Amino acid sequence: MNRNRIAVAPDSGRHESLRQAVRDAGAKIVEPDEAVGLIWADFHRPQDLAPLLAEAPSVQWVALPFAGVEPYVALVRERADLVWTCARGVYARPVAEHAIAMATAGLRHIVGYAGQSSWGEPHGRMLVDGAVTIFGGGGITTEIIRMLQGWDCDITVVRRSDSPLPGASRTLQPQDAVEAVRGSDAVILAQALTEETRGSIGTEVLAAMEPHAWLVNVARGGVVDHDALHQALVEGWIGGAALDVTDPEPLPEDHPLWALPNVLITPHIANTPEMGIPLLASHIRSNVRRWLADEGLDGRIDPVAGY
Amino acid sequence: MNRNRIAVAPDSGRHESLRQAVRDAGAKIVEPDEAVGLIWADFHRPQDLAPLLAEAPSVQWVALPFAGVEPYVALVRERADLVWTCARGVYARPVAEHAIAMATAGLRHIVGYAGQSSWGEPHGRMLVDGAVTIFGGGGITTEIIRMLQGWDCDITVVRRSDSPLPGASRTLQPQDAVEAVRGSDAVILAQALTEETRGSIGTEVLAAMEPHAWLVNVARGGVVDHDALHQALVEGWIGGAALDVTDPEPLPEDHPLWALPNVLITPHIANTPEMGIPLLASHIRSNVRRWLADEGLDGRIDPVAGY
Repeated sequence: MNRNRIAVAPDSGRHESLRQAVRDAGAKIVEPDEAVGLIWADFHRPQDLAPLLAEAPSVQWVALPFAGVEPYVALVRERADLVWTCARGVYARPVAEHAIAMATAGLRHIVGYAGQSSWGEPHGRMLVDGAVTIFGGGGITTEIIRMLQGWDCDITVVRRSDSPLPGASRTLQPQDAVEAVRGSDAVILAQALTEETRGSIGTEVLAAMEPHAWLVNVARGGVVDHDALHQALVEGWIGGAALDVTDPEPLPEDHPLWALPNVLITPHIANTPEMGIPLLASHIRSNVRRWLADEGLDGRIDPVAGY
Repeated sequence: MNRNRIAVAPDSGRHESLRQAVRDAGAKIVEPDEAVGLIWADFHRPQDLAPLLAEAPSVQWVALPFAGVEPYVALVRERADLVWTCARGVYARPVAEHAIAMATAGLRHIVGYAGQSSWGEPHGRMLVDGAVTIFGGGGITTEIIRMLQGWDCDITVVRRSDSPLPGASRTLQPQDAVEAVRGSDAVILAQALTEETRGSIGTEVLAAMEPHAWLVNVARGGVVDHDALHQALVEGWIGGAALDVTDPEPLPEDHPLWALPNVLITPHIANTPEMGIPLLASHIRSNVRRWLADEGLDGRIDPVAGY
């Protein structure tokens, strides 16, 4: 079978750079019903993928454009006959930068000073020489550690695997989350959303955080118990929360988190299309080359783990 | 003459950690009229120093607690018979962190998202992989470069000396300021305020900046022409301005900069007392040891240059 027939779907007309990446890699753009590989380029309608695959009997490989693929996990498991890849790690650098930017904006009270209209009182703490805890041992965490290398931070990583992550002072496992956040100035969430991590940042972890510490979520809203978070913020268990992801999204206008002064909410823009499309195109180009050469693909999804 | 008689003045009762630093270094705390060295620990009343020195005939060395010493330059020149030191470089790390925090808060639209009460539109640019121009070749610049080492930025430094600063892609001189800011995503001001630098960031430099670029000032308010800055912000010559220092300070409540959405003003808190006093105490301890050993002091002020 000729592996070089690749479809980019749906044909929204918005993703010429992805089609160009496929051509640059040496493959031919075809319609889905003739394709062996499918580059799924839709960010908003996961429900459209199953019907499309049903009409595309030759497809063997589906490339999803996300790092986190929760809306697709059921389909991935149902169609475990296919090779599935995601954009794991592809957007790690912009997301890592946003995590650091939000942590320093919180700790240094930039969140409070922004929008003021008079000279305020001195506030702020340093992240430099401070302690940081990062949940998740993937690409975002690796990039955060790399970007903080000149900051002399004491870094604790919480991950499922017990193998130490390079650059971290400590690597702990999820059952030690309470110990992991004690003494940290910033707790950054960068783990996958799974059955195990859903709601895992709740009362117990938040109560163990320092009263000045900021929680930074660049993972998925669902990893945080938002009721517990609201209580922690109102009662001063933690210094503040900077959330690029919420549950649900968009966060409704009447949600009580909007009203709190020690909360920064950014609308899931750690990686904007402007930042991400060039990174995704580069990933697609590389993976199509690997596909044509019958090499192992980057970002293989494990249907059991769900990421 | 016995060099170990050191005064810490004025005796505000707030600076026990500085007196402890003097004792830790092996010197004896005395009153100013008996002192050979004077640790000036007042942050607000420069006019009180000259009368105190007039009553302290044995003093040979005066240590000022600031990195920038403009209010003292006239006195330093008048009393050039004394050895003067300042806290040059002592606060560089907190200030460097604040500069990076403000640059990312601006570029990533955190300044705009803070204080909003509903889910907004996507905005933001990366500093990672971007271009940064830093004015000044001192301790703050060195620390910014060190902290950005994992960010893969293209860094241009503008300094008086023509010797390249390690870690910078380009080192230019002040007459090339316009060339230096072209193409940069963030322009960070960290130069000393002198006769030469006063108002030097004006129409010409601001007009050469990119329309998306943020100006970040952690130097002194006086290096920027604030009327030109206001025009640049209103007319969209630049993306925004993040100012930890203004001219005057505090910035009056009726100043037009407060009303602009693309401005972040923090009240001269890049280095708060909470961050700075331990750093200052460490500097004093080290310099008193050097003084007792008759070694060269850190932070010597050049009376001619004024810093």
